[in-house]
Amino acid sequence: MTTAAGWDHPSTSLFTDHYELTMLQAALHSGTAHRRSVFEAFARRLPDGRRYGIVAGTGRILEGIRNFTFSDEQLQFLSRTKVINQKTIDYLAGFRFTGDIYGYAEGEVYLPYSPVLIVESSFAEACVLETFVLSVLNHDSAIASAASRMTGAAGGRPCIEMGSRRTHEESAVAAARAAVIAGFGSTSNLEAGFRYGLKTVGTAAHSFTLLHDSEREAFEAQLASMGPGTTLLADTYDVETAVRTAVELAGPALGGVRLDSGDLIAQAQWVRKLLDDLGNHHTRITVTSDLDEYAIAALASAPVDAYGVGTELVTGSGAPTASMVYKLVSREDGRGVQVPVAKKAKDKVSLGGRKYALRRLDEDGTATAEILGVGHRPADDGNDRPLLQQFVKNGELFDGWTGAAGVMRGIERHAASMAEMPRTVYRLQRGEAAIPTVFEE
Amino acid sequence: MTTAAGWDHPSTSLFTDHYELTMLQAALHSGTAHRRSVFEAFARRLPDGRRYGIVAGTGRILEGIRNFTFSDEQLQFLSRTKVINQKTIDYLAGFRFTGDIYGYAEGEVYLPYSPVLIVESSFAEACVLETFVLSVLNHDSAIASAASRMTGAAGGRPCIEMGSRRTHEESAVAAARAAVIAGFGSTSNLEAGFRYGLKTVGTAAHSFTLLHDSEREAFEAQLASMGPGTTLLADTYDVETAVRTAVELAGPALGGVRLDSGDLIAQAQWVRKLLDDLGNHHTRITVTSDLDEYAIAALASAPVDAYGVGTELVTGSGAPTASMVYKLVSREDGRGVQVPVAKKAKDKVSLGGRKYALRRLDEDGTATAEILGVGHRPADDGNDRPLLQQFVKNGELFDGWTGAAGVMRGIERHAASMAEMPRTVYRLQRGEAAIPTVFEE
Repeated sequence: MTTAAGWDHPSTSLFTDHYELTMLQAALHSGTAHRRSVFEAFARRLPDGRRYGIVAGTGRILEGIRNFTFSDEQLQFLSRTKVINQKTIDYLAGFRFTGDIYGYAEGEVYLPYSPVLIVESSFAEACVLETFVLSVLNHDSAIASAASRMTGAAGGRPCIEMGSRRTHEESAVAAARAAVIAGFGSTSNLEAGFRYGLKTVGTAAHSFTLLHDSEREAFEAQLASMGPGTTLLADTYDVETAVRTAVELAGPALGGVRLDSGDLIAQAQWVRKLLDDLGNHHTRITVTSDLDEYAIAALASAPVDAYGVGTELVTGSGAPTASMVYKLVSREDGRGVQVPVAKKAKDKVSLGGRKYALRRLDEDGTATAEILGVGHRPADDGNDRPLLQQFVKNGELFDGWTGAAGVMRGIERHAASMAEMPRTVYRLQRGEAAIPTVFEE
Repeated sequence: MTTAAGWDHPSTSLFTDHYELTMLQAALHSGTAHRRSVFEAFARRLPDGRRYGIVAGTGRILEGIRNFTFSDEQLQFLSRTKVINQKTIDYLAGFRFTGDIYGYAEGEVYLPYSPVLIVESSFAEACVLETFVLSVLNHDSAIASAASRMTGAAGGRPCIEMGSRRTHEESAVAAARAAVIAGFGSTSNLEAGFRYGLKTVGTAAHSFTLLHDSEREAFEAQLASMGPGTTLLADTYDVETAVRTAVELAGPALGGVRLDSGDLIAQAQWVRKLLDDLGNHHTRITVTSDLDEYAIAALASAPVDAYGVGTELVTGSGAPTASMVYKLVSREDGRGVQVPVAKKAKDKVSLGGRKYALRRLDEDGTATAEILGVGHRPADDGNDRPLLQQFVKNGELFDGWTGAAGVMRGIERHAASMAEMPRTVYRLQRGEAAIPTVFEE
């Protein structure tokens, strides 16, 4: 995997809610803007009935923070529309994040209240990052969490991400990235290949068959151009005729056929038998058509070689956002002393104070609990695995968390983190979190 | 509304599925790539139980097509990764869309099978646009469709878009744009203000209160900086105490209070009474906290002045994608004759041939049916309102459909199109489409 040359990271500073900047203005006015503060991003709950979530987006946040600066045009916009006053504009003109960032590695399993990202800086710097940080975490983690259930249900069979057309064009790139972190082998999205070095793949659409005067001519054209290893789309007209034509034209080297409609289980069975009868034992069957983790699980006994997943992946399979929040948990008081803080609303519990986080493992290395506590982690933590990584120190980014290297690292972390979880993590039925979250005193 | 200076539209050409380019390669090889073709984007169904959908994204598509060109770095990526051969790379090096584009105006109501976008060009040009066109239409129309139900449920009360943190950072900008087209009065998203001239607004977050040593100090800071017309967040600790403190500090000119938790209906009732008892008859009550169209409808009798809507707006209120497809419906054959084409799969019906589309109106100007037919529309169409606009001719964009002007036009079209629909369009209960789709012979 190589990093993209020629992709200009966009400015991220206006991916921000209006109130972040008016709060900044008021805090600059009252003198509290420079109080050292700790914000934590976490989810109070998993999506309805899910057993776990997967962290994704951290690398994109770190890439974006480097571009969280304000251009003259952006400052003129804020001035012209009177969003903030001149003093605040002057502050933003020189803005650069100079604090520290910790969090869970991309690909890591998270649970309710896991502090997946911790920003420690002046209130001003942490406040203005809120919207961007949450946008990325909520989207990317929702996709990775759904993707992980799909790759789990697929067992060892490859999953292909092909949902770009069902979501915003930039979400599609981030979704491909998140899916690959959570175990997908490839994507149809070319921009994701360009930016992050992901493997891209593709077959053909019905329009290609319809463009030609017959299905035979379409197959001939594709085979002549792409070679016999290509995958032919078999359901534009009659599937049996298509498979016979494909084998006749491509011979035993035919790479694959794609089925995109109908009863996929029964169809995969008889198409496999037909291919074998024709001598095409190595021709693969790829199924697409609105798959989700349940459909993938239902196809486990069918002779399918790869799953192409679209809509349900990029929409988070019923949970398009991860419900993460970003809360002030500690800040300096007027005398410079750090004090834990928390909102008191009855229906939205928060725990004040900066957290540590450990995954408790039994003697076999299987996770048994998510241990959270306030303050520094205990010196003697036995088998517990520390979960917090430091990504940024005094505004300087540590190597290896961004770009194509960050994705590779996320793939490895996802595999290792899932291997450590109890087998109940793979249950698709609604239920409790796979391991409990325990707050230590 | 002014158009953004200083926003660089990104290149859109790799927001494209791998197979679009391999189909292009095969079609260039077989000589069919230059066959004049007609593709239509439409939805076979509305989201489960919805009565109508709202078209959005067309302006963004038209802006994006201008940047659908391939840079040297992008072509080198396609070459290095062997996605396509040199002949295809040479074709893309000079790519510029030169065809025609028609469709429904942004803000227009659509129904099952409405041809919301029609691309007429060579197969090559229309094929490579597929993924980008669908990404934009599926996302933006899903958001606008949900937003329209919310503004319908809100009656005349203002709705504020504040969902940026719950979706991808770029989706957030597009969602704000789509929401405003569908009747939202403002957004919290600053980038949407910058790019499209949308009105941005904001209050304050719980973190701002928690930053200060007391709620009173936080309110004092916000009032000192923003003036008494600001909206104070009242539920960080105790709501009654907060409202009394706010009125004490700001006096009768206090702009508003925001309620973000608890039983909003009961709370709005007694907060209104408390404000009135304190003499603050003009202080507004804004409610937020996971509102959707049903919660907004339930608050109709409560003394609420504005609805802030987040998560449910940006996730399409249960329908995060509009299920639109982009299908080849007609193309030249080997002799240069246009022939209608359609896939024959039993579970996915398509109607071949290029469509016209009319909204049938009764003598009162109320819509009674969506009339679709193949070929040119009848000369005598009585009260029927033609729905197709031409946006692009020979690659040249007509004025008024993009940027801030396009959004303004979309706002007007949405209001006019909704005013024309039968009142059943406002029913939130699941049911049939508000008017039937009729295929004319």
